[in-house]
Amino acid sequence: MHSEQWLDAVCWDAQGLVPVIAQEQGSGDVLMFAWMNREALRLTAQTGQAVYYSRSRGRLWHKGEESGHFQTVHAIRLDCDNDVVLLTITQQGHQPGIACHTGRHSCFFQQLEEGQWKIVAPVLKDPSHIYEK
Amino acid sequence: MHSEQWLDAVCWDAQGLVPVIAQEQGSGDVLMFAWMNREALRLTAQTGQAVYYSRSRGRLWHKGEESGHFQTVHAIRLDCDNDVVLLTITQQGHQPGIACHTGRHSCFFQQLEEGQWKIVAPVLKDPSHIYEK
Repeated sequence: MHSEQWLDAVCWDAQGLVPVIAQEQGSGDVLMFAWMNREALRLTAQTGQAVYYSRSRGRLWHKGEESGHFQTVHAIRLDCDNDVVLLTITQQGHQPGIACHTGRHSCFFQQLEEGQWKIVAPVLKDPSHIYEK
Repeated sequence: MHSEQWLDAVCWDAQGLVPVIAQEQGSGDVLMFAWMNREALRLTAQTGQAVYYSRSRGRLWHKGEESGHFQTVHAIRLDCDNDVVLLTITQQGHQPGIACHTGRHSCFFQQLEEGQWKIVAPVLKDPSHIYEK
């Protein structure tokens, strides 16, 4: 039996969730931000692949289950308040990795320039080809 | 007059907040996670220094106001859903930068190892010396 003390140490919010940052190993790029519940974090640690909790779908979301763009998890960190998780990952399924549903490397592709959000990163793969099936 | 359309584009949550990730320029280290309201994000863009919204104190929090550890903001990014902000920053006030109130470089200093959270980063400065005055 595996102790779950490490899961008890996490300060889950009122919805039982914790915010999660996924950072790419090597590049250090911040690829995405999502949420986990207790089960998602347990599965992530157990399987070594990122499992989030989709607030919009109200269920566990094994990243890559539709796109094939799984995330291999190298490290799981927790912040000083025990209420934010940082994953070090490798983004699978495409070279370079595509973490964003828009077909971009990172979800953070809009940058504030002269009072406007400018798109500063290219689409690497047409989303209609990522999510076809 | 400066247009505030870029602020309107942000999807503020029910509390009028948006989660913010602060990443160090150069190293790429994720230093901390916090929240901003509209005024905090406006001030951050205007002044070039990170201003957050402290949920515990219920007010704007100019990072460094007590510690002297200000953050110079080089870039402000927004994610694909317009509901998460990523800052590229330089952590001021100490070399190497101290973003965490525990006196560590990054808030993410606990790492999951063999089912336990292990502290994997040193205290760079005693917090009692950071917050004395």
